[in-house]
Amino acid sequence: MILEAVMLSAKLDLEDDFEAAFQQASNIIASSDGYLSHELHKCIEVKGKYLLLVKWETLENHRIDFRSSTQYQEWQKLLHHFYEPFPIVEHFKEISLS
Amino acid sequence: MILEAVMLSAKLDLEDDFEAAFQQASNIIASSDGYLSHELHKCIEVKGKYLLLVKWETLENHRIDFRSSTQYQEWQKLLHHFYEPFPIVEHFKEISLS
Repeated sequence: MILEAVMLSAKLDLEDDFEAAFQQASNIIASSDGYLSHELHKCIEVKGKYLLLVKWETLENHRIDFRSSTQYQEWQKLLHHFYEPFPIVEHFKEISLS
Repeated sequence: MILEAVMLSAKLDLEDDFEAAFQQASNIIASSDGYLSHELHKCIEVKGKYLLLVKWETLENHRIDFRSSTQYQEWQKLLHHFYEPFPIVEHFKEISLS
């Protein structure tokens, strides 16, 4: 399992529009190969900031399968114009805690 | 439920020591009032980078109960000297997705 984690900054005063678009976009990512789950969290301290967490079976499921899909073009159209600055996406492996 | 999320940067070449200390520190946070769960994830793209996610019942459980506890002093002693730069902790509320 790979965790995709990205801090998103929505343009000022577009938070409601972004959240509405994200509801639509959720169906797109959820139908992608290797998708396991996703969560969107809204920051308490910083206006317009969100944390998106997506669990994928493998890194390739996100980097290759999702990003080269026609669904990703739809995802981009719905969401990318809300971001300022454009976000940096990173991937993580969970550390097993005893 | 509140999600505490923080990107941690361990000093270069101290990743193994940090991870070992974190195993010890895990027991400390897990016994704190209002603690629900926590996960530590290691970044694939950036050496020494980690994402810590902690779920708390309320914001106060983290900000007040944990940070003013004697356990927090132990947590600090175990972990804080590994960080460079010192991390910024933020809190998030989950957005319900349909």
